[in-house]
Amino acid sequence: MRTLKLTKDSQKNILESLLKRSPNNYTEYESTVNEIINNVKENRDKAVFEYTKKFDKADVDASNIRVTEEEIKEAYELVDEKLLAVIKKALVNIRKYHEKQLQNSWFTTEDGIILGQKVTPIAKAGVYVPGGKAVYPSSVLMNVLPAKVAGVEKIVMCTPCGADGKVYPSTLVAANEAGVDEIYKVGGAQAIAAMAFGTESVPKVDKIVGPGNIFVALAKKAVFGYVSIDSIAGPSEILVLADETANPRYVAADLLSQAEHDEMASAILITTSEELAKKVSEEVDKFVEVLSRKEIIEKSLENYGYILVAEDMDEAIDAVNDIASEHMEIVTRDPFSVMTKIKNAGAIFIGEYSSEPLGDYFAGPNHVLPTNGTAKFFSALSVDDFIKKSSIISYSREALERIHTDIEQFAECEKLTAHANSIKVRFED
Amino acid sequence: MRTLKLTKDSQKNILESLLKRSPNNYTEYESTVNEIINNVKENRDKAVFEYTKKFDKADVDASNIRVTEEEIKEAYELVDEKLLAVIKKALVNIRKYHEKQLQNSWFTTEDGIILGQKVTPIAKAGVYVPGGKAVYPSSVLMNVLPAKVAGVEKIVMCTPCGADGKVYPSTLVAANEAGVDEIYKVGGAQAIAAMAFGTESVPKVDKIVGPGNIFVALAKKAVFGYVSIDSIAGPSEILVLADETANPRYVAADLLSQAEHDEMASAILITTSEELAKKVSEEVDKFVEVLSRKEIIEKSLENYGYILVAEDMDEAIDAVNDIASEHMEIVTRDPFSVMTKIKNAGAIFIGEYSSEPLGDYFAGPNHVLPTNGTAKFFSALSVDDFIKKSSIISYSREALERIHTDIEQFAECEKLTAHANSIKVRFED
Repeated sequence: MRTLKLTKDSQKNILESLLKRSPNNYTEYESTVNEIINNVKENRDKAVFEYTKKFDKADVDASNIRVTEEEIKEAYELVDEKLLAVIKKALVNIRKYHEKQLQNSWFTTEDGIILGQKVTPIAKAGVYVPGGKAVYPSSVLMNVLPAKVAGVEKIVMCTPCGADGKVYPSTLVAANEAGVDEIYKVGGAQAIAAMAFGTESVPKVDKIVGPGNIFVALAKKAVFGYVSIDSIAGPSEILVLADETANPRYVAADLLSQAEHDEMASAILITTSEELAKKVSEEVDKFVEVLSRKEIIEKSLENYGYILVAEDMDEAIDAVNDIASEHMEIVTRDPFSVMTKIKNAGAIFIGEYSSEPLGDYFAGPNHVLPTNGTAKFFSALSVDDFIKKSSIISYSREALERIHTDIEQFAECEKLTAHANSIKVRFED
Repeated sequence: MRTLKLTKDSQKNILESLLKRSPNNYTEYESTVNEIINNVKENRDKAVFEYTKKFDKADVDASNIRVTEEEIKEAYELVDEKLLAVIKKALVNIRKYHEKQLQNSWFTTEDGIILGQKVTPIAKAGVYVPGGKAVYPSSVLMNVLPAKVAGVEKIVMCTPCGADGKVYPSTLVAANEAGVDEIYKVGGAQAIAAMAFGTESVPKVDKIVGPGNIFVALAKKAVFGYVSIDSIAGPSEILVLADETANPRYVAADLLSQAEHDEMASAILITTSEELAKKVSEEVDKFVEVLSRKEIIEKSLENYGYILVAEDMDEAIDAVNDIASEHMEIVTRDPFSVMTKIKNAGAIFIGEYSSEPLGDYFAGPNHVLPTNGTAKFFSALSVDDFIKKSSIISYSREALERIHTDIEQFAECEKLTAHANSIKVRFED
C-alpha cells in the first residue's frame, strides 16, 4: 500500500479520487436506465420478461416469476446447515438491535392544544438483492429486518435468477427467515422500475432499498419521488484510525476485509505512528499473497488504498471527519474519547477486537451504510427508513380564539386572504 | 366545486389526475436544469452571476451577492411591525415543537459488548427560499428552525433578489430571527447547484431544503446523492374528511385556503353526508366571489377540486389513506378515534377549530409536508432531516472470542476470505 504524509493537499486529492467512484458520475448509463424504466412503466410485465431474457438469459413469465413455496423448501435442502444456523443467530442480533430504534408516537398537551407526531410504518417495502459476482445472504437480513421491525405489512423482494431460472438457495433461505412476503425473479434497473410503478406480476411498493450495480443505483435515483429509496450505495470503504498502540496485523487484516469487496473498494489507514504505517504495509503485503481474492485486493489497493501519516491525533481526526468513511475503526489509546470527536462515519468500530466484519454479519447494527462521503448527511439503513411521521394538530375553540388575530395578521402579510378567511369565519358571530 | 360519488373508479381517476402534478413529470425541463447545474459546477461564481443577470435581471457579483448586515438592518425598518411581532410569536411555537423531536444517542451494554447509535447534526445546511409570486416569511421559519434546533453549525440561505438587487425585507427579517448565518442573492436551479457544489462565493452544504418552482425541484433531485435533500415539493393539497356534524362554512373556507396557493393546488372534501356536500359547494361559491385570489382559486378548483360522497366512514377513510394528502382535516364525530385509522397524511388537523392555516403559520408543526401521495413514505420536515446516526460497535476480546467461529463461517459461505481472515487473525495465537 502506498504511504503518504497526511497534508491538506493529500487529503483533498484522496477525497477527489474517492468521490470519482460515486454512482452520480456514471451519467453515461442514464439514458439506458431511463429507457428501461420507461419501458417497464409502459409495458409492465412484458418489458420485465424481455429484459430478464436479455440480461439474465432466463425464461420468466407470469407463471414463474414469483418464487414458490416449493422453491423455498428446495433451497432449505440445498443450503449449508452451518450457514443456516449462523443466519438464525445473526438474525436474532440484528432484530434485537433494530428493535431499539423503534420510535413512539408522541403528543404534548397545553390548555386546549394537542400537538404531536403519529408514527406509522410504510405499507409496502421493496428489497433489491443482487445476484452476480457474490451471494450475500447477510445483505438480505440487513435490508429486510429493519422493515420487518418497523411493522411494514408487505415486504417484496426482487433478485435476478440464473439462466436456469433458479435463485441462489442462501438468498431464498435468508429471505424466508427474515420474513419476506413475496420474492420475484427480476434484477437490474427493470426490477427497480417494476417495484416503483408496479406490473401485472410485481406489486408497486412505497420504498425501495438494497444494494446493486450502477444500473440499479441510477434506477433508484430516477424513481426517487415516485417512491422513497435508501441512499445510493457506492463501493465499500474502511478507514482505520490508529496510533502506536495498534496491532499492525489486525489493522492490515481489517483493511483487506473491505479491499476484497471489489476493485473500487477503498481501504485507508490514518495513523500518528510512522512505525505502525510501515508495519501495516508489510503485513498487508504478506496477507495479500495468501488471500483468495488477491487480484481484486491488489487492484482496489492500487486504486483506493492509502496509508496516511498524520502529525497528531487532531489532524488525523479532521481527516477522518472530512473523508466520512462508510466503516471506521478506532484503534488507539482511549478509543471512546476519540469516538466523541468523530462526526462523520457510517459505523464506528471501537477498540482492537471490534473488527469490521463483525458488523457485516453478526453484531446487529446494519451493514447498509452511507458511502462516498455521504456519511456527512446520511445514516445506516434503519427502522427510521420504514416509518413516516404525520404531524398532529388539535386546537379547541378557546385555544384558537386566543391567537386567531395573530394568524390572520400573518396570512394577510403573506397576501393569502383565503388563509385569513378560514380563521376569521370561525369567529364571525 | 364538482361533486362525485366516491367509487374505486372515481378514486383511481382523481389519484391519477393529482399525480400528474408531480415534479417527476416535468422531464422536459431536465436538460435545461442539467445544463445550469453543470455550468455552475464548472464555472462556479461566473455562471451564478450570469444566470442571476439573465433570470432575475440583477447585477450580482462577488462583492454584493451576500446580504450584508446593513441590508438586514434596513429590512427591519421596512417590515411591518405587526408582522415582526407575529413572526417572533410563531418562532417560539415552532422552536418548542421541534425541540420535542430531538433524538438522543443511545447504547446498550451486554457482557463485553457495547452497541448503539451516535446522533450528530449535519454540519452545513442550505435553505432555499423562493421569491416570485408570493413572499412567505413563514417558509423561512419552517425550513430554518429544524436545522437550528438540530444543532447545524452553519445555515446558508439562497433566495432570488429583485432587479434592484434587493431581497424582500420580510424574508430577511424572518431569516435573521430564525438564525440563518449567511444569505446569498441567488435563485432557481443555479442556487441549488451553487449550494450542492460550492462556488467562490456560495459555500457547499451537506443538505438542501426548501420549496421552489419546477426548476428548483428538478435541480434538487439532480443533486441528490452529492448532497441530501428534503422531499421534492409539489403543489399544495388539502383533504377534509367530514360527516354530517361538520360546519359547511368552516369546511368551505378551509378548502379554499389551500386552493388559493396556485392553479395546481388541490382541495378535496370526502364526506359521508350528501347534505354537507351540497352545503359546502354552496359556501365555496359564495366565498370565491369575495376572495382576492379568486382567479387562482377558480382554476385550482376546476383542475383539482373535488367533493366526494362516500357510502360510509370506512370507505371514506380508505380513500383518505389512498390519496395520502399533504394536509388532512378530520371534522367528524369522535375525530380522535378516526385519527387512529389515518395512515397516510402529512399533517392531521383534528376537530372543527383546527383549521389548516393554523398549521401554516403558528401552531408549531412544520408546514413543509409531503405532497402528491408521498405521505405514504415521506414525513414533514423535521429535526430528523438535519441529523444523522453513526452505528457504534465495541466488542471485548472475550465477547468476540465467543462468536468468532460464527462470523468466520458466515464470511466463508459468502466466499469473502479476507473478511474471515480479519477475525481469525485475532485468535491465531
